[in-house]
Amino acid sequence: MDENQEELELHFQQLREELDQNNLPAFRDHFLEMHFYDQGQFYQSLNPKERQLIYSYLSPKELADMFDVIEEDDEHMEEYLNEMRPQYAADMLAEMYTDNAVDLLNELDKKPVTKYLSLMDAEHANDIRELLHYEDDTAGSLMTTEFVSIVANQTVRSAMYVLKKEAQIAETIYYTYVVNDDNQLVGVISLRDLIINDDDTMVSEVMSERVIAVNVGDDQEDVAQTFRDYDFLALPVTDYEDHLLGIVTVDDIIDVIDDEAASDYSGLAGVNVEEVNENPVKAASRRLPWLITLLFLGMTTATLINHYEALVSKASILAVFISLITGTAGNAGTQSLAVAVRRLAISDDSEKNFGKLVVGEILTGLVTGLVTGITIFIIVGIWKHNFILGFVIGAAMMAAITVATLAGSWIPMIMERLGFDPAVASGPFITTLSDLTSVLIYFNIASLFMERFIGQ
Amino acid sequence: MDENQEELELHFQQLREELDQNNLPAFRDHFLEMHFYDQGQFYQSLNPKERQLIYSYLSPKELADMFDVIEEDDEHMEEYLNEMRPQYAADMLAEMYTDNAVDLLNELDKKPVTKYLSLMDAEHANDIRELLHYEDDTAGSLMTTEFVSIVANQTVRSAMYVLKKEAQIAETIYYTYVVNDDNQLVGVISLRDLIINDDDTMVSEVMSERVIAVNVGDDQEDVAQTFRDYDFLALPVTDYEDHLLGIVTVDDIIDVIDDEAASDYSGLAGVNVEEVNENPVKAASRRLPWLITLLFLGMTTATLINHYEALVSKASILAVFISLITGTAGNAGTQSLAVAVRRLAISDDSEKNFGKLVVGEILTGLVTGLVTGITIFIIVGIWKHNFILGFVIGAAMMAAITVATLAGSWIPMIMERLGFDPAVASGPFITTLSDLTSVLIYFNIASLFMERFIGQ
Repeated sequence: MDENQEELELHFQQLREELDQNNLPAFRDHFLEMHFYDQGQFYQSLNPKERQLIYSYLSPKELADMFDVIEEDDEHMEEYLNEMRPQYAADMLAEMYTDNAVDLLNELDKKPVTKYLSLMDAEHANDIRELLHYEDDTAGSLMTTEFVSIVANQTVRSAMYVLKKEAQIAETIYYTYVVNDDNQLVGVISLRDLIINDDDTMVSEVMSERVIAVNVGDDQEDVAQTFRDYDFLALPVTDYEDHLLGIVTVDDIIDVIDDEAASDYSGLAGVNVEEVNENPVKAASRRLPWLITLLFLGMTTATLINHYEALVSKASILAVFISLITGTAGNAGTQSLAVAVRRLAISDDSEKNFGKLVVGEILTGLVTGLVTGITIFIIVGIWKHNFILGFVIGAAMMAAITVATLAGSWIPMIMERLGFDPAVASGPFITTLSDLTSVLIYFNIASLFMERFIGQ
Repeated sequence: MDENQEELELHFQQLREELDQNNLPAFRDHFLEMHFYDQGQFYQSLNPKERQLIYSYLSPKELADMFDVIEEDDEHMEEYLNEMRPQYAADMLAEMYTDNAVDLLNELDKKPVTKYLSLMDAEHANDIRELLHYEDDTAGSLMTTEFVSIVANQTVRSAMYVLKKEAQIAETIYYTYVVNDDNQLVGVISLRDLIINDDDTMVSEVMSERVIAVNVGDDQEDVAQTFRDYDFLALPVTDYEDHLLGIVTVDDIIDVIDDEAASDYSGLAGVNVEEVNENPVKAASRRLPWLITLLFLGMTTATLINHYEALVSKASILAVFISLITGTAGNAGTQSLAVAVRRLAISDDSEKNFGKLVVGEILTGLVTGLVTGITIFIIVGIWKHNFILGFVIGAAMMAAITVATLAGSWIPMIMERLGFDPAVASGPFITTLSDLTSVLIYFNIASLFMERFIGQ
């Protein structure tokens, strides 16, 4: 029952043989009965010669169904399109759901896009052109125009008739949107409601007039949040005057949620984590910009320690605890950063409670610093039989942790206020910055108590 | 049209007034026309006295619809249930979708669960009891039993008849699952296919026999991946003999994806990022376990530096670069860790390519280390007019970065092999571990060249 991987491999092998033997009818039968995703897996496993056969065996529409589920950021996408006859590629793009075709075209240069659009029929080309205009990461860039809309003044029976007619091309038929003569969204009715209500009921009687819609310019994160809250399978997209422009479907929202999570994770790590299966030089070149930038920031810390070199040469014991203090404060800063970024991502009230948050973080930093500081005070005091040294290390640790905790939460908040993505304030940045403040705090406290702990 | 926040606030105010004036009919009218999510928002904004009114104004079924969309990890959930009459609470739980009721009961102690189950009708209690058995994070724990199943040997017309009857209680009616006499899953038909096919067609002719199903014991991450791949709105769950047990719906998968992302992010930061709006002491107590654990690991590094104290007192310049080397290596380790954890999460072939990955990471580490090492060699050489010292720092930096890069990628791989979640290897852990190896490398290289760079 459950298509497991082995069965699928066997099936792929059979398909490949049918392809090699030019057994067109058998190939089509077996290929088309597969799920679109599995078709895509098979297609992506082929070599260019075999793919040429595919283009002669399958219609643009059949290929389009498969391309609708291949991720548009596949690195071979451009290659695939280039190896098709331009007219065939254009026809296929026209047959894809508009949002997917647009996502794919967005990965290409301007020239081929113009070429494909010129080879397409006017209607499809216009639909695509319109969607190409919307800014990345907005509801407009996610939406498709293949939805079903009706007017309220008709029976459930006639609505079902429209629905059946549109079912072949609409991306979802599970919601039907009701518009007025001005194409303004006035209601929504689910297919569930259509089939449980009597055929002679008027749509206006059974539709829901409380339609949750998103604005075409809304950020994709907000759209995703609406999906999460209301558990919808699709949402209508309107302009500022409530005109219905398109719909966003839940499968696109899953991609958004994945992308946003990957981007937050990348931010925290200071590296784009999408680098999978890259060669080492390419992988290194993705990591180096941050590393080198932070190396220069780290040089500031080195310069600072250099300034205190006389102190260190008098009391080399101070060198022993540098990495402990900077490391622990860095850890505290990373924790605080992650909590702050997360909080900014899920709540809208950052403005309102700014003061409260700041006080909260100061207190959290103080408590964390106090506990850690007392711990290290006891350890160092006992280890070195020197509680004044223990006090210096403990006090420096506490102050460094408090400052790092504050920096970890303030910096993303300030970035958010300045209009940047707070997730860009990476963990490595915070730890490197915290190295600087920690060293400053440490050597200042050490200078103050210098005579005493050496004397002991 | 688009219910904006302001409108909703006004609506809430009106509802609260109707509640206070005991205006039952008006309240019911206005409350029940809202989306379940908005009902939940209103309910959660009430005080205990007002909530008591809700329990007398709404039926258990009406409350259940709303509870179906309130997140079960809301901290007040237990309070809500406790303030209802036990029979009312039990009736409400019975009316909820089974998967949601189970999620909610899983948050409670054993005693109230037993109480509610004993107050329920046998059928609902059994459904819930069965689902309570499934392990967390498996398909079984996500699934619901409110699905529609039919036999193949009937017409589309009669299938639609069944569907209409079940539409009120099924969690989704957009897929109908076809089973044989043994309740084994043999096919699936979407509502789209049902409505576009002729009423007299047999279900067996139009159903898809290639059903993608998940096994009840499958990990929830794998279930989420199947949803991503195939863009389904629901997936059937079967046991090892293909018996149909339940379905998982896409809204639950969005929660899974969110939870997994939060857990990866928390892992990288070394803190549970779900701590939102907590008081400072609670927030600190979440962060301290990792901090203190890592403080002890950091003490090993301090002990190591202590071992080289004689070296430092002879050449205090060495102290200047400790934090630069440990910091930069730590940053490289964090990057490498994040890439490795991400790769493990999205690919299943970690076993196969283990050797290749290791070689790749060694090379990436070497390239990254080489570039960074040369950079710092030049900077230190010029700054200190001492290229031997520059060479020592550069070589130590290069070696430390290579080791940190390897540790960052190997440790999660090894954890995965040992059956742990690789995301648990946190960024702070890697940086603290890398402090130790970096210091070891640094002082060993420094010892070797000691006489020369001091001499210069």
